[in-house]
Amino acid sequence: MTCERVYLFDTTLRDGAQTAGVDFTLADKIAVAKLLDGLGVDYVEGGYPGANPTDTEFFAEKRTTRAAFTAFGMAKRSGRSVSNDPGLQGLLQAAADACCFVAKAWDFHVREALGVTLDENLAQIRETVDSSVAAGRETLVDCEHFFDGYKANSDFALACARTAYEAGARWVVLCDTNGGTTPEEISEIVTAASAVVPGTCLGIHAHDDMGLAVANSLAALGAGARHIQGTLNGLGERCGNANLITLIPTLKLKPAYADRYEIGVGDEALEGLASLSRSFDELVNRTSNRYAPYVGANAFATKAGIHASAIVKNPRTYEHVDPERVGNHRRLLISDQGGRSNLLAELARVGVEIERDDPRLVDLLELIKKREAQGYAYEGADASFALLARRTLGRAPDFFSVESFRVMVERRHNALGELVTVSEAVVKVVVDGEPLITAAEGIGPVNALDVALRKDLGRYQPFIADLRLTDYKVRILNGGTEAITRVLIESMDGEGQSWTTIGVSPNIIDASFEALIDSVTYRLLKADAPAP
Amino acid sequence: MTCERVYLFDTTLRDGAQTAGVDFTLADKIAVAKLLDGLGVDYVEGGYPGANPTDTEFFAEKRTTRAAFTAFGMAKRSGRSVSNDPGLQGLLQAAADACCFVAKAWDFHVREALGVTLDENLAQIRETVDSSVAAGRETLVDCEHFFDGYKANSDFALACARTAYEAGARWVVLCDTNGGTTPEEISEIVTAASAVVPGTCLGIHAHDDMGLAVANSLAALGAGARHIQGTLNGLGERCGNANLITLIPTLKLKPAYADRYEIGVGDEALEGLASLSRSFDELVNRTSNRYAPYVGANAFATKAGIHASAIVKNPRTYEHVDPERVGNHRRLLISDQGGRSNLLAELARVGVEIERDDPRLVDLLELIKKREAQGYAYEGADASFALLARRTLGRAPDFFSVESFRVMVERRHNALGELVTVSEAVVKVVVDGEPLITAAEGIGPVNALDVALRKDLGRYQPFIADLRLTDYKVRILNGGTEAITRVLIESMDGEGQSWTTIGVSPNIIDASFEALIDSVTYRLLKADAPAP
Repeated sequence: MTCERVYLFDTTLRDGAQTAGVDFTLADKIAVAKLLDGLGVDYVEGGYPGANPTDTEFFAEKRTTRAAFTAFGMAKRSGRSVSNDPGLQGLLQAAADACCFVAKAWDFHVREALGVTLDENLAQIRETVDSSVAAGRETLVDCEHFFDGYKANSDFALACARTAYEAGARWVVLCDTNGGTTPEEISEIVTAASAVVPGTCLGIHAHDDMGLAVANSLAALGAGARHIQGTLNGLGERCGNANLITLIPTLKLKPAYADRYEIGVGDEALEGLASLSRSFDELVNRTSNRYAPYVGANAFATKAGIHASAIVKNPRTYEHVDPERVGNHRRLLISDQGGRSNLLAELARVGVEIERDDPRLVDLLELIKKREAQGYAYEGADASFALLARRTLGRAPDFFSVESFRVMVERRHNALGELVTVSEAVVKVVVDGEPLITAAEGIGPVNALDVALRKDLGRYQPFIADLRLTDYKVRILNGGTEAITRVLIESMDGEGQSWTTIGVSPNIIDASFEALIDSVTYRLLKADAPAP
Repeated sequence: MTCERVYLFDTTLRDGAQTAGVDFTLADKIAVAKLLDGLGVDYVEGGYPGANPTDTEFFAEKRTTRAAFTAFGMAKRSGRSVSNDPGLQGLLQAAADACCFVAKAWDFHVREALGVTLDENLAQIRETVDSSVAAGRETLVDCEHFFDGYKANSDFALACARTAYEAGARWVVLCDTNGGTTPEEISEIVTAASAVVPGTCLGIHAHDDMGLAVANSLAALGAGARHIQGTLNGLGERCGNANLITLIPTLKLKPAYADRYEIGVGDEALEGLASLSRSFDELVNRTSNRYAPYVGANAFATKAGIHASAIVKNPRTYEHVDPERVGNHRRLLISDQGGRSNLLAELARVGVEIERDDPRLVDLLELIKKREAQGYAYEGADASFALLARRTLGRAPDFFSVESFRVMVERRHNALGELVTVSEAVVKVVVDGEPLITAAEGIGPVNALDVALRKDLGRYQPFIADLRLTDYKVRILNGGTEAITRVLIESMDGEGQSWTTIGVSPNIIDASFEALIDSVTYRLLKADAPAP
């Protein structure tokens, strides 16, 4: 039996941007598109060019290599021609492979919100698809409120789908916009829709308002749809969209699906899924869900007891899939061999060579566990991880040492009577036994420290001349009076190579300084700077 | 058509206690049992008397008034009589209305883990149920791994279920112990089981390892089961159990279920659901999931302007149920994507009264847009939003003004030669024309500023005595040299009421200070402190 191809459409950068508290910058969007392209989704919906400056700039050039780069927009407005609709024209001018248009499919909305006749709505769908196809774009139509619309007026909802298909849309996507449809209804209504549009051109767009977005996506698949829309970690308006990070392993690993369907995500990308999920959370500055299916830190965690001992005998007893397949690992309250293999793999990845049976591996594993308990998270900080390993193995020279530092931030009225805030830092380092004192002003305390630290590192100065900070993230762990601050700093050299370092402390300045020192040290190691 | 009764069985205190990081004390258990009894679930499974001192003490007396107080335990062990099995006897002596026994239903486990024959396993089930029924207990049997067992050896799995039923078990519960079964499989296998045990005696116990626990519970219901096991907020081993807080509103409010089934949870209890969910999170010290179906803070939050204006016209357009039915409320997020309707709705929510056609609304909207372009995000900072509105409308007195502040962070060697970091702040404020200077040390610079600021606010001091910081979040926008820091501070007063304020600046200290000042000012406004 040949597997049928199922297409994954990611809308993290469009519907995901509707999430309360999420606000993508251009740099964020570029980074997320790269993550998605590496994962192997078929479509990356990047936003709504013309709606805001960020999205317009994002669509100034193509941002994916494998996935179809997709622009979102509204179907043509009533009462004006295609060439006279600036929104639509903006969309067709974007550097996109595909255009996805949202069109209403619920008669109630057409009358209430658009104030046009049902026939006019169908004509708008037809003309919109025509113009997009004529402009050479692969065309998708999101039928908004399709399921509620079908329940209210099935003929009209089906007519919207049929019109989009007949006008040449590659995909007609049935949207459960309000997230209130049950799996049984999804199954029934998708079956009805497949009578007017072939299943190989039908998509599903589900929301999680009843905790059923994943189930509804699978129900649509069962009823014939072959295109699933979703987001990374289930981001999205209200309770979120269907979570692709949950769906992908289910489609790849559960025989009920894997024996029937094929997706564009490869086995290797699947093994990077847990790490991708956490990187994405770092990017949007959200705490990772420890209980997330497949990728959560606790997804394969078992409290000590009968289950744990059974798992050691035979993992199949209490694990529905092998955690390694999604890049996660088993957590038991006993020392496990999985930790060691993970560590070896990670060391190889960051270029630290070590024998499989080197006894120092155990020390390093213990040290990492201890530090992670303190708040370090090495998954997002490769450079600090590599440094920690090298230090434990005696392979990181002490290029310089820090004697002391001092930072002052002062807000006061200046000579002109204006309220200003100044930040100054003084750093004392020792290089080759020689003390060096530098001082600098900065935009803020961390910037002042960074500038002062890199002003004079003696003979190492040439190696760090092109280093610059490209990102700085802060997370407060625990909260309240026992709060611990975790700082992640991303740095870049003149060749555009970047690396991330971490610092943890109750004091944000201390944590930042630790990450700064790691960043400079890593740069010196990378550049093969001579040891003192 | 009469509704069929569906029974809810809560296992928060038993399977929920397997959650990594959750550890119930006796007092916790008593409090949770009370919450559950008030909610209206039919069974409260309290734990495993005899397995640990907490559970034994919890079962020393009956802890529920409405729900059946249920003790969990293992079926009788092999090679000893019922009267000679201390675990089983302990269970029968507990002050419980019902006993729920776990029994193996997967031949592989019977042979591997128990090391007994399949017939012996059936005999153990029969004798266990016999003894429990004889002791006057309502008896339930959890068939562990029923679905995996059915796939491996359907005859044996069904024989386990039939044996429990014929011996007199009130409920035979089919458990998807590893959480790896799909909804289609659940539906098929529950249908098969209902041929040997009537559906009115069949239960479902689902886990969320594929994000399908809720869907699987509903699929079992569709196939005839009439008893659903789950937990509050989906607590449970690994990814958790079926979330009753999600299932209850779906069963109560969605016609597809509400027209067919009836549960013991009343309309009034349903209106307390959001509050119950958050109280429970407080109790187990977990951060509430803002994106949780029905009860999350964002479950009815809308960012997009077009959606928002449609909701204001008619909530049915973008809401699948009325948020008030579950004790939640609509949030129209103020953001550059929103418009006037969002603004009016939000002003009403934070208690700022203004006429629909007040011209200052336009000014306020412009100001918000300008500030959001600078990096402010008012959707997560209600208190700063309320202050901004009041200031624009001239309704926020200047209780005090800040003359200047200074913070110093120094890392140095102390007299003992240890490396230490100290943070000190000096703040000058003017209250009633009188300058007040305070200084303080802190764990970090923001803590030092906070302590100094709240050390002496003159006659306002009594109003802020009980204020404390409960959370502090930092996000760096743009990145690189033009980085802007956004700080969110959550504060709480002595009565447990909390509010969030925001500060934005290129300088993290400035941004933090702005949020601190807003927090103190908001507290003074809330307390009706007299204006200067």
